[in-house]
Amino acid sequence: MAAGTLLYAQSGGVTAVINATASAVIETARRHGLRVLAGRNGILGVLREELIDTSDIPASVIRALAQTPGGAFGSCRYKLGSLQGDRAKYERLIDIFRAHDVRWFLYNGGNDSADTALKVSQLAVEFGYPLTCVGVPKTVDNDLVVTDTCPGFGSAAKYTAVSVREAALDVAAMADTSTKVFVYEAMGRHAGWLAAAAGLAGHGADEAPHLILFPERPFDEAGFLGHVRETVERVGYCVVVASEGIRAADGTFIADAGGGKDSFGHTQLGGVASHLAARVKDALGYKVHWTLPDYLQRSARHLASATDLKQAMAVGRAAVEYALKGRNAVMPVIVRTKDRPYRWKIEPAELADIANHEKTMPPDFIRDDGYGITEAARRYLEPLIRGEAPPSYGRNGLPRYVRPGGVLVEARLPRMDF
Amino acid sequence: MAAGTLLYAQSGGVTAVINATASAVIETARRHGLRVLAGRNGILGVLREELIDTSDIPASVIRALAQTPGGAFGSCRYKLGSLQGDRAKYERLIDIFRAHDVRWFLYNGGNDSADTALKVSQLAVEFGYPLTCVGVPKTVDNDLVVTDTCPGFGSAAKYTAVSVREAALDVAAMADTSTKVFVYEAMGRHAGWLAAAAGLAGHGADEAPHLILFPERPFDEAGFLGHVRETVERVGYCVVVASEGIRAADGTFIADAGGGKDSFGHTQLGGVASHLAARVKDALGYKVHWTLPDYLQRSARHLASATDLKQAMAVGRAAVEYALKGRNAVMPVIVRTKDRPYRWKIEPAELADIANHEKTMPPDFIRDDGYGITEAARRYLEPLIRGEAPPSYGRNGLPRYVRPGGVLVEARLPRMDF
Repeated sequence: MAAGTLLYAQSGGVTAVINATASAVIETARRHGLRVLAGRNGILGVLREELIDTSDIPASVIRALAQTPGGAFGSCRYKLGSLQGDRAKYERLIDIFRAHDVRWFLYNGGNDSADTALKVSQLAVEFGYPLTCVGVPKTVDNDLVVTDTCPGFGSAAKYTAVSVREAALDVAAMADTSTKVFVYEAMGRHAGWLAAAAGLAGHGADEAPHLILFPERPFDEAGFLGHVRETVERVGYCVVVASEGIRAADGTFIADAGGGKDSFGHTQLGGVASHLAARVKDALGYKVHWTLPDYLQRSARHLASATDLKQAMAVGRAAVEYALKGRNAVMPVIVRTKDRPYRWKIEPAELADIANHEKTMPPDFIRDDGYGITEAARRYLEPLIRGEAPPSYGRNGLPRYVRPGGVLVEARLPRMDF
Repeated sequence: MAAGTLLYAQSGGVTAVINATASAVIETARRHGLRVLAGRNGILGVLREELIDTSDIPASVIRALAQTPGGAFGSCRYKLGSLQGDRAKYERLIDIFRAHDVRWFLYNGGNDSADTALKVSQLAVEFGYPLTCVGVPKTVDNDLVVTDTCPGFGSAAKYTAVSVREAALDVAAMADTSTKVFVYEAMGRHAGWLAAAAGLAGHGADEAPHLILFPERPFDEAGFLGHVRETVERVGYCVVVASEGIRAADGTFIADAGGGKDSFGHTQLGGVASHLAARVKDALGYKVHWTLPDYLQRSARHLASATDLKQAMAVGRAAVEYALKGRNAVMPVIVRTKDRPYRWKIEPAELADIANHEKTMPPDFIRDDGYGITEAARRYLEPLIRGEAPPSYGRNGLPRYVRPGGVLVEARLPRMDF
């Protein structure tokens, strides 16, 4: 007989370690005798009453979840609005919780999810329904306030730094007769955290990456091209890391510059790296290559940061403990107590202080010329990519990733479509 | 006092493990008391008399080379022509060898390098200069004949299979409300070996990758779009792996379809994945993402295949042994003696049988419908990605990659520009 039911849901873009958080949540809850339900495809599954009962998933599979990227129970992009505007949906959530005797709700995501968890907790109070809501941090974008970093970011940051270093060695070897300029496009629509992480790949002006383009600074094409030319002439090649979110001084996204329609009326998909590469080719005549790692950068569990993995599991465990202690409307956050050596602890923070805020890079993390990171940025970033935590591999040469399965519990309410 | 001088040069696109071959060449040569010179930027460095003396590079650095991607001494794209047409260059090579008392020449590359090594050996015979030329195989394209596989391919294949599996887990988690179609662009202009390796990421019709597009089969847009739609309707999402070299029935490269000039007269860089993604978006209306890993796939030493690494070192060792035994105009190749368990050995093959040939995928490796791999392909490919051989990492969270340095030997001939 379960001591109660906890509901866990994943939200927004998944990461290399969000399942590690899920794994820690389920293990900790089981230790306390709780039954854990998981929303299929996040909050949408809750609204649709598609709840996965994790009880029958073997402990070995729950453990293996911690080394599996993606979102084991499915996630979604679905933002609930204000309590007034979306009241029917919030009430539906409370109805679902009541129908399945859910007393603890853990919502694993970014700003929006913190906001949703906060509103659900408020409505539960209004309705007199006994519910403890806990947000659990996650995002490769590293844009949550209060917390030192967000689980998922450190692994994507490590992927970025390692990939840029590897590609740079390739370009360096070939530059004499082949590619002279290489452009790497990093995720980050509003903040340049992942682009900044690429800066860890090298030291000094001659080591790659030679130029980093941040969304925090307006993109100046002439200045950029001048620096590329100067770097190629000095070093022999130039490695550029560009955040997908860079914008011109007038605010337009550079990524949109390359898109549009071709002469057949077909869509041309843009992108920052391909656009910059084309400009370098046209204006400077260098042979150029570019990469768009896209989802590879946030799902590269094979290259996870051990620090990130530990933090992802720590917030999962803490979230359950907070929930059981009735700490309502909080989120376990990472508090940095020391830089070198890196020390951190988990503490609860109010969801109200986190919801709907966005952390951008501190100005002193970006070099004065705008094209690189500072020592302060290195001090912050380096510990986050430290340590390796590879998955185990099968005899077929592939990581042993699992899909947990689990059966849907029987619906108790009228079906509603969302 | 060195027992003689061996010259080693890297050629063409570098790989995750070509430096492992270099490491094995140098270690083996040192054990035999030889001095090893390396061409700076490959054969061009030889023509320019830019020869790196590796004698003073510490043994620890030579060992660390085996875990460093890229081309440690530089490589180049530079094809020598016929003995008649490029006779002056071939003669220059013999002059350089004579000036530095080079008795063994090891040329590490693909088809073209095998051809060059063969011609150099012929000219040496004609001139009565005592030289043993040995080709050493390398290419991510896996397109050398005779050998079972090419060092460099297995690691790129492992990167491809792992990355596709990881990204597929990401897409699966989000497909309900976000991206439904994901396109991965694999290297392979003429042969679909790397695209085929992606097939190892899943089994059966419902597991990713759902569609693989090979350059060996003409691209049929309507058929492709129909399969994408059918897959999304059945599975909920669709992961496509496309070889960069796919072509329409009339022979035109699909990659070129997306390029051209925009309305400002600026270059638009094409690409297969972005083109296919745009067509899916236009024709089917699905949200789509795509990735172009580009150099990341051939420099991902962090995800090397242990099998590939062993083979890369084995051909390096064997090349030195063959050279010292006077086995002229041969290449150490990998001979598969058994599939399961995979067994292989190194044997010498005639350069004349390898030069200028190209191995494409056997027709029975591609499924009848043209969109996937067969069991025969799996049997061939799977052993090549087996085993992990991660580099060691520093306390900063990055692999300990080295740049070997080494000093140029003094030039003895009049300078010539190439």
